[in-house]
Amino acid sequence: MKTVLCEENNCLSASVDNFDDSEISLSNMATCNLHGEDSPYFAGWEAYRKDPYDEKLNPHGVIQMGLAENTLSFDLMEEWLLVHPEATITSEQGLDSFKELALYQDYHGLPDYRKAMAKFMEALRGYKVKFDPDRIVNAAGSTAANEVLMFCLADAGDVFLVPSPYYPAFARDLRWRTGVEIEPIHCYSSNNFQITKSEVESAFKRAQDLKKKVKGILITNPCNPLGTISSAETLKMLLAFANKKKIHLVCDEIYAGSVFHSPEFHSIAEIVAEENYTPDNVHIVYSLSKDMGLPGFRVGTIYSYNDTVVTAARRMSSFTMISTQTQHLLSTMLSDSEFVNYYIAENKMRLKERHGLIVAGFERAGIKYLKGNAGLFCWVDMSDLLPSKDIEGELKLWKGILYEAKLNISPGSSFKCMEPGWFRVCFAEMSTSTMEVALERLQRFAEQCKNHA
Amino acid sequence: MKTVLCEENNCLSASVDNFDDSEISLSNMATCNLHGEDSPYFAGWEAYRKDPYDEKLNPHGVIQMGLAENTLSFDLMEEWLLVHPEATITSEQGLDSFKELALYQDYHGLPDYRKAMAKFMEALRGYKVKFDPDRIVNAAGSTAANEVLMFCLADAGDVFLVPSPYYPAFARDLRWRTGVEIEPIHCYSSNNFQITKSEVESAFKRAQDLKKKVKGILITNPCNPLGTISSAETLKMLLAFANKKKIHLVCDEIYAGSVFHSPEFHSIAEIVAEENYTPDNVHIVYSLSKDMGLPGFRVGTIYSYNDTVVTAARRMSSFTMISTQTQHLLSTMLSDSEFVNYYIAENKMRLKERHGLIVAGFERAGIKYLKGNAGLFCWVDMSDLLPSKDIEGELKLWKGILYEAKLNISPGSSFKCMEPGWFRVCFAEMSTSTMEVALERLQRFAEQCKNHA
Repeated sequence: MKTVLCEENNCLSASVDNFDDSEISLSNMATCNLHGEDSPYFAGWEAYRKDPYDEKLNPHGVIQMGLAENTLSFDLMEEWLLVHPEATITSEQGLDSFKELALYQDYHGLPDYRKAMAKFMEALRGYKVKFDPDRIVNAAGSTAANEVLMFCLADAGDVFLVPSPYYPAFARDLRWRTGVEIEPIHCYSSNNFQITKSEVESAFKRAQDLKKKVKGILITNPCNPLGTISSAETLKMLLAFANKKKIHLVCDEIYAGSVFHSPEFHSIAEIVAEENYTPDNVHIVYSLSKDMGLPGFRVGTIYSYNDTVVTAARRMSSFTMISTQTQHLLSTMLSDSEFVNYYIAENKMRLKERHGLIVAGFERAGIKYLKGNAGLFCWVDMSDLLPSKDIEGELKLWKGILYEAKLNISPGSSFKCMEPGWFRVCFAEMSTSTMEVALERLQRFAEQCKNHA
Repeated sequence: MKTVLCEENNCLSASVDNFDDSEISLSNMATCNLHGEDSPYFAGWEAYRKDPYDEKLNPHGVIQMGLAENTLSFDLMEEWLLVHPEATITSEQGLDSFKELALYQDYHGLPDYRKAMAKFMEALRGYKVKFDPDRIVNAAGSTAANEVLMFCLADAGDVFLVPSPYYPAFARDLRWRTGVEIEPIHCYSSNNFQITKSEVESAFKRAQDLKKKVKGILITNPCNPLGTISSAETLKMLLAFANKKKIHLVCDEIYAGSVFHSPEFHSIAEIVAEENYTPDNVHIVYSLSKDMGLPGFRVGTIYSYNDTVVTAARRMSSFTMISTQTQHLLSTMLSDSEFVNYYIAENKMRLKERHGLIVAGFERAGIKYLKGNAGLFCWVDMSDLLPSKDIEGELKLWKGILYEAKLNISPGSSFKCMEPGWFRVCFAEMSTSTMEVALERLQRFAEQCKNHA
């Protein structure tokens, strides 16, 4: 099968020219590269996969710091599972529910699960806001949740404004199958990468100048990759802008429970609660992959204040449903308020401690970083070490870190950062001793770079 | 929020006319009715939901015969689960795997699960063919598997030929988000609804006359709603046609393990194995929702002989992954050959017995039916009872059966059947005693109809 690759942004306008009469043809979607995997972000994972570090078995292997995973609090969940066998429908104690739940395939999801998820989302926000279980829409991870929202809110060719640097896989999740385009809202180190009104307006205008219809703004709050949060003022500015332009505001809050330090986190739900109307244009995405460290379970949530979106997204969730085995387990776990409150507090404490260790390591190594208070990563400034102050220089430095220092960290260019030399470094997926090894390697590498400069 | 509904087939060509400046607009997709829920097929479910039959608590309620579910062999699975607690990563015995698997989020799926699924697919086909685990692509149910294949094989506006009558939700699954169109291959009662070459050619020509590009044929084998299988000759004819026209052949074989009577089932994989080349244009869809009765677990499979499709579909499976909790359980269960072979044989025996009971009931009631040997339903001919020989007459009869006889069965028109008076009646989701009540109600209703005629 010969496949013809079309240019990234021309994917959707590619015509039947791809059709070769001597071959059986696929869709333009299957053969274009909008899947976004041709990126250092994914290449680094591959390097790790081929040569993974192990303290004893492979002490010179690649250490994975490119994956925003959280293994710090698994023991809490394991302890809970041991004393709650009834939460498992395939256990002797839970088997009474097996038949009913294994059969259940309604896209509304299990009512008890939705209640528990709404309550958990309230707990994560310090019970400052209420969530209606009937507005909870299930999706198999936030990857799917974000895509479903794009399908609901925008037509192919329409634009969403997304503050950059942004999560590399958004290029796939928001665009690939939907045809939606991303116009970045540029953020800069000069104000610690905070979103400004003037940059939002510039991004809007750029899209309009291209005769594109802007359908919304999508932010991550807490921000991936920055590890910082949006202030209440920023959220109000974004909501006011969205209201004025009659566009949507999607807030991906998958790190809502991973804010481990002041200042206090504000969910868009709090801003909405302050308004004296329920906005039709605000939508929240959540997932248990980060705060609970359960990416394998594929548990995503769309919370929309718009009735039509709830209905349409729920119908679309037919394509991305969560296993009832998993829904039932989580419904039991997340309904246990005592456990939930303990878990949230303890997990934050562990993240804070871990974050303290890694930034201490950066300081020992003379490496600068953005002061963050959330997430599973630091946003690190290694522009001092660049061989040249451009993307090529950044990728050269990245390769050195990956293949010489054997650390998989992710270069800012894969997050569409405007300034070269920034890297995202994840810290919650490894043991403390592995992190110490990683920090030593980084320090040694930085010293070598400086000596060679 | 005011929503503007566009005409079903104009959904994708609808322009920005839907955009009302005074409102925040959604996508055409979210507001069109291509989701297909405005159908008696779904309305019947709703009637059941509001007034479900219960032998003791609600003996005059609606009996559900509109859902192709299989509860006949749950006891076998429950027995297996009791002696295999290690298959459950949230049980004391399986907890060692919890951390690793709850964290695992690779779209390749668990290697052991893919191996087990490939082996299970071989077992279901009597070990007559081999399946390569590296061609297994995961999806959260066959709903998603079919949609992913459409995204990979066809562009918006392209056509797939689908023999009618066909599964009502194909109108949603194949079309809604992909923009792909369905051209029916008409099948008729005169030859027991078998697919003929001349009707395949007619459908192809109709699409061509509309200036549409035909990208493939999609069949269900065993067929939903017919409960029959395609002969090897039919499969060879379809493959030859697809090869000649350089189009795809998708075989949805989700009832492959539910063939309970002769003639013998032939998978397209057997036909492919006989060829002296590996075809780039053949793709199989499978799921555990029917043969294993596990729709709640959302376990779908795409098996493609085309490398590019495997790669693209796997990337798309990011949006529709199966919980690792569920993958691990099934990987252990499906690797147990002794259990698998016993389950398949016993389940078929139970289906055969149940099918025998229901057709005996039809005969007592003087109701005609298509002789079937597979699936969880019968295709029943009640044209004798129609008040008028058209769709209106069929829907009138359907309402009588639903609201007077209180049986939710599905009218042929929701399957796009060309001849009025056919109904799909499911038989594997209820107890024998409930089925007896249903058959008595049906007999009484049929007699009333005949007396009033």
